[in-house]
Amino acid sequence: MTTTVVPTVDTVEIVPSFIRGSWWTPDAASAAGAAPVLDASTGELLAKVSTEGLDLAAVVDYGRTTGQAELGKLTFHQRALKLKELAQYLNGRREEFYALSAQTGATKIDSMIDIDGGIGVLFTFGSKGRRELPNSQVVVDGPMEVLSKDGSFAGEHIYTRIPGVAVQINAFNFPVWGMLEKLAPAFIAGVPTIVKPATPTGYVAAAVVKAIDESGILPKGSLQLISGSVRTLLDHLDYRDLVAFTGSASTANTLKSHPNVVKGGVRFTSETDSLNAAILGPDAVKGTPEFDAFIKSLVTEMTAKAGQKCTSIRRAIVPQEQVQDVIAAVGERIRERVVLGDPRAEGVTMGALASREQLADVRAAVQSMLDAGGELAYGTLDSPKVTSADGSIGVVDGGAFMSPVLLSWADPEAEEVHSLEAFGPVSSVIGYTDLADAVRLAARGGGSLVASVCTNDPAVAQQLVTGIAAHHGRVLMLNREDARSSTGHGSPVPHLVHGGPGRAGGGEELGGIRSVMHHMQRTAIQGSPNMLTAVTGVWHTGADRNFTLETEGQHPFRKSLATLHIGDAIRSGLREVTLEEITKFANSTGDTFYAHTNPEAAAANPFFPGIVAHGYLLLAWGAGLFVEPAPGPVLANYGLENLRFITSVAAGDSIRVTLTAKKITPRETDEYGEVAWDAVLTNQNDEIVATYDVLTLVEK
Amino acid sequence: MTTTVVPTVDTVEIVPSFIRGSWWTPDAASAAGAAPVLDASTGELLAKVSTEGLDLAAVVDYGRTTGQAELGKLTFHQRALKLKELAQYLNGRREEFYALSAQTGATKIDSMIDIDGGIGVLFTFGSKGRRELPNSQVVVDGPMEVLSKDGSFAGEHIYTRIPGVAVQINAFNFPVWGMLEKLAPAFIAGVPTIVKPATPTGYVAAAVVKAIDESGILPKGSLQLISGSVRTLLDHLDYRDLVAFTGSASTANTLKSHPNVVKGGVRFTSETDSLNAAILGPDAVKGTPEFDAFIKSLVTEMTAKAGQKCTSIRRAIVPQEQVQDVIAAVGERIRERVVLGDPRAEGVTMGALASREQLADVRAAVQSMLDAGGELAYGTLDSPKVTSADGSIGVVDGGAFMSPVLLSWADPEAEEVHSLEAFGPVSSVIGYTDLADAVRLAARGGGSLVASVCTNDPAVAQQLVTGIAAHHGRVLMLNREDARSSTGHGSPVPHLVHGGPGRAGGGEELGGIRSVMHHMQRTAIQGSPNMLTAVTGVWHTGADRNFTLETEGQHPFRKSLATLHIGDAIRSGLREVTLEEITKFANSTGDTFYAHTNPEAAAANPFFPGIVAHGYLLLAWGAGLFVEPAPGPVLANYGLENLRFITSVAAGDSIRVTLTAKKITPRETDEYGEVAWDAVLTNQNDEIVATYDVLTLVEK
Repeated sequence: MTTTVVPTVDTVEIVPSFIRGSWWTPDAASAAGAAPVLDASTGELLAKVSTEGLDLAAVVDYGRTTGQAELGKLTFHQRALKLKELAQYLNGRREEFYALSAQTGATKIDSMIDIDGGIGVLFTFGSKGRRELPNSQVVVDGPMEVLSKDGSFAGEHIYTRIPGVAVQINAFNFPVWGMLEKLAPAFIAGVPTIVKPATPTGYVAAAVVKAIDESGILPKGSLQLISGSVRTLLDHLDYRDLVAFTGSASTANTLKSHPNVVKGGVRFTSETDSLNAAILGPDAVKGTPEFDAFIKSLVTEMTAKAGQKCTSIRRAIVPQEQVQDVIAAVGERIRERVVLGDPRAEGVTMGALASREQLADVRAAVQSMLDAGGELAYGTLDSPKVTSADGSIGVVDGGAFMSPVLLSWADPEAEEVHSLEAFGPVSSVIGYTDLADAVRLAARGGGSLVASVCTNDPAVAQQLVTGIAAHHGRVLMLNREDARSSTGHGSPVPHLVHGGPGRAGGGEELGGIRSVMHHMQRTAIQGSPNMLTAVTGVWHTGADRNFTLETEGQHPFRKSLATLHIGDAIRSGLREVTLEEITKFANSTGDTFYAHTNPEAAAANPFFPGIVAHGYLLLAWGAGLFVEPAPGPVLANYGLENLRFITSVAAGDSIRVTLTAKKITPRETDEYGEVAWDAVLTNQNDEIVATYDVLTLVEK
Repeated sequence: MTTTVVPTVDTVEIVPSFIRGSWWTPDAASAAGAAPVLDASTGELLAKVSTEGLDLAAVVDYGRTTGQAELGKLTFHQRALKLKELAQYLNGRREEFYALSAQTGATKIDSMIDIDGGIGVLFTFGSKGRRELPNSQVVVDGPMEVLSKDGSFAGEHIYTRIPGVAVQINAFNFPVWGMLEKLAPAFIAGVPTIVKPATPTGYVAAAVVKAIDESGILPKGSLQLISGSVRTLLDHLDYRDLVAFTGSASTANTLKSHPNVVKGGVRFTSETDSLNAAILGPDAVKGTPEFDAFIKSLVTEMTAKAGQKCTSIRRAIVPQEQVQDVIAAVGERIRERVVLGDPRAEGVTMGALASREQLADVRAAVQSMLDAGGELAYGTLDSPKVTSADGSIGVVDGGAFMSPVLLSWADPEAEEVHSLEAFGPVSSVIGYTDLADAVRLAARGGGSLVASVCTNDPAVAQQLVTGIAAHHGRVLMLNREDARSSTGHGSPVPHLVHGGPGRAGGGEELGGIRSVMHHMQRTAIQGSPNMLTAVTGVWHTGADRNFTLETEGQHPFRKSLATLHIGDAIRSGLREVTLEEITKFANSTGDTFYAHTNPEAAAANPFFPGIVAHGYLLLAWGAGLFVEPAPGPVLANYGLENLRFITSVAAGDSIRVTLTAKKITPRETDEYGEVAWDAVLTNQNDEIVATYDVLTLVEK
């Protein structure tokens, strides 16, 4: 037997902050009023939290100067690669984080959603950042718009990073995922992060930041951590900065009302809890795979993370005649599957709420719903018996445990079912009359993060989804085809946006590169093609070309990435198209479409003068005209984009090709990169026959 | 001679509002406190304005119900076509609007910027809406993301219109352009507009709305006009609605602080005045075309619309050693070119400010700048002598005339030059030391709508533009190549975004279809490929196909748009590739790249097993495999997108093609439409050889 020393506020450590490149805690005197942090299952004191004496202005300034400067040395691809390295590093330290996470009331599966989920976001952005962004610091948005008749003046849009910091204020329920899903897009954009986790679980985030610091992977100033209150942080921000908030609507509103947001132009985005719906289609009656998927999803969302997810299903909206079947099936599944207790105990499938304060809040919210007409269809507000870490079963006084609760409502119009959120294992069931009614009821949530639609009828899905989409950030369609493979109602995925209008906060996170763009300013630029080329690093139609055969005695295909420049070009001679060649091509390829074979029918077509050459013949000849046959740095033509046939080519016409290096993207981890070539086919009258981009791989 | 009756507040008419489909004015008793509207040049009373007694809740409700319902009957293309028709109609009534516009102090050129500019926005959106959006009501944003290994679960993003109204509050300086540039994107999105023009010039907007009403082109409820105060309008809005504001920062901040914005989730965007900069490059010394373009632009921006443009140049940032040259040249050009007076007088090139109140404000702002260290380098604060409508020259007491004013600053760091805006014909000149200093000074505006960069050095342009971009909504690069063709510093174009961060309001308007999207909600949808297909109306990889040859005895190319459905498909048999065919193709096309001709060299390439077939051979054979030779509804293959070669094909391999109708876009004004076909080439082992989209024109 060992004697354990019960820690007190005086003896436990203060969760440190990581600012200006080093670890910081307040001095003893300042820390007198530090907030305690308790184990969710046992009530044991774990740590305390204080930022008393922290120089917030210096933190912001460090991000804006050192952080911006260090990140500014890297391209998008280089930053993305660092995220991948970081993901691999953190993957190797997951066990440490799981142990801490269990203290927050999270089961192993809950912890994996948080920790592995967060690392997964880093992997996704590490990959997308390299596949979907240029290997530079400027993103071009959309095509060039020619703004003058002679082509000498044009415009387009670019994104460049915002010149400040990204302040990321996270909720208590996902200390790791919440931090990493906000860090990843800011980092790729090149914007330094200042993260502020929630007090009850911030020690888990701090442990991860500690690991990140130890990894040495991220540049100086790209990540700072404030463990504790940041009440005056917004006083130091302006339009150069961004605040991304996840948490309660009331805190979001307070932040949003700050003068530096209203007048100062701080970019503000929030993701708040919402009364997410799951709609059961009329076809999805008991016995169908869709009914089963619906019940399974509802119970999962009630119990995973003890229902403390902003994406949990709060309102099950089902056909009136199916309300009783749904209630019965939910009860049955909970009884079969849910074991409540300390996550460190064997067999436990649902843990504690994050704190006793949360428990009191949730119970009070349920009581208000009962007072407003809700009825307990499953569960209780009494303290449940739970399994403790040692395997014993009973009520744990210090633990924040609560039974799953399902409410039914005789009146589906009751205001409270659509507006009161119990942030725990609590859902309501209401009945609808027809699809329009279901849409209307879902919309009464006033804007939600996510809704599920459970049906196997495409017409029902179409009507429900297009009806509710504008009220939601995400809609999941569950049917027999994806019930097993679905990532689930409650799980945002890094590829798709997370957030929602209205009550859900009006913000948007994730969604792949979309979230990187939220950390950048879109700017319209106007100028001559040469100047647009200079600013973007991408060659623009109308800009100067360098015909390297003439100027350097070298075909551009003989230049490696080290010597190839945008604007390097080749122009071929003319090659005449004959009817014989068209006929031969038709016969050899099998493409005997009448426009290539039948003079009368071809002439009757509104677009052709008579028999015309195949578009694919022109493409193939184009390649024949620009190719450099011998082995060289150009390794392969891996694709083609934006092909448009403009002027048809008849027998007797001639074509030539002009090929210009347009975009050069060296890879970080390969000995080659992508080169996109602007290709223009013209005829003997210099009319444009076709335009396209040829995509090649070229050695470094 | 005729006797003119001088109107009084009792006798002039009230500018009417257009609400719930009819014209409305307050009753006589309510209108007692109506605000007077005066001629800018003469001070004559023109009209009065009051909304006393107007039921604003009913206006919002009418938009949300009738407006949404009527617009909901139309597709994007149908709405765009109506904008085109409206543009043509209003074009025919411009003379009426010019006459009214002259009363606001606008010269003919000023009026054309406002009226023709506004009509031009309708034309641009009428065209872009049909070219760049689907002919449906759902926009797909980005590619499908496969989220499960077996492909049964995937996600993507859609945009659907917001389910409320767009409240558009405009500034006094562009009553027509301001209205139409906000109406156009909202209309195409399908969101009803409630427009509120500014009191001093709202009568011009009202005349245009009157004409729009008379045209009968727009659906019921799609446009309502409130002529006068809308102080409590925001009380009736929520997260379904959008407010787009143009005007002063202080009004924007008041609106932005409204509880329905902060807590209620009203989407709010603002475009406020800013201290726009024009930077002269170090190379652009006196005598260069860039210097001349700079001076010309500066004087134009000071005097057009009497400098009452949110985009006017307020700060000329020039190399220290060029400050005196710039001042001299500006003075010279103003003396040569600018004739101040009543716009109805012959030869006048600069009109009055919009009102005497504006005049007083501008003079006070200039005085504050003089007090802060600015010096008058050109112009005066005294009342200038001007040309009246009858040709006489002298001081007009009732007119809101002001001389152009150029200020110079010994201290370029003076806070006032970067923060005080005189919203009239007023600019300042400050000197910079190097490019980094110029970037820093430009950024001191705290976020601006637009900046000009005047240089012929691409490296200077690159450094300045990427340095200032994140502080700006638009950057114009002027050099000898585009000085004549440029649309100008002060003119937003409908193709490019208008707005800017920070002080400029943090909003974004125009930018083509980008602004349509601001009226729509982006929603992530997840489900099986079949369900994604059902919701978007676009066929998705993995969804069911209908092989019509087998099921209907008909090649899909024989189906017109009336009978063709997404998912209709054809799968060809296998065709073997031989070395002989590859060699023949190389010789006939001239594409003798070593991978197709030289076995050793091909095998040494990291991507090929040996000699492989040309990508263009595979494409051509693909067409041969899917083509239906006889004349039919498929008229032409006009292009190709997203081609990727995945697996190389060697002699002995065989390929087949599967072609599936993916996206069908009937045209509103032609007897045909676009059909995009998903094409997949596979080999004898069912490995994917290539994927691409074939773009065709198909008869209705």
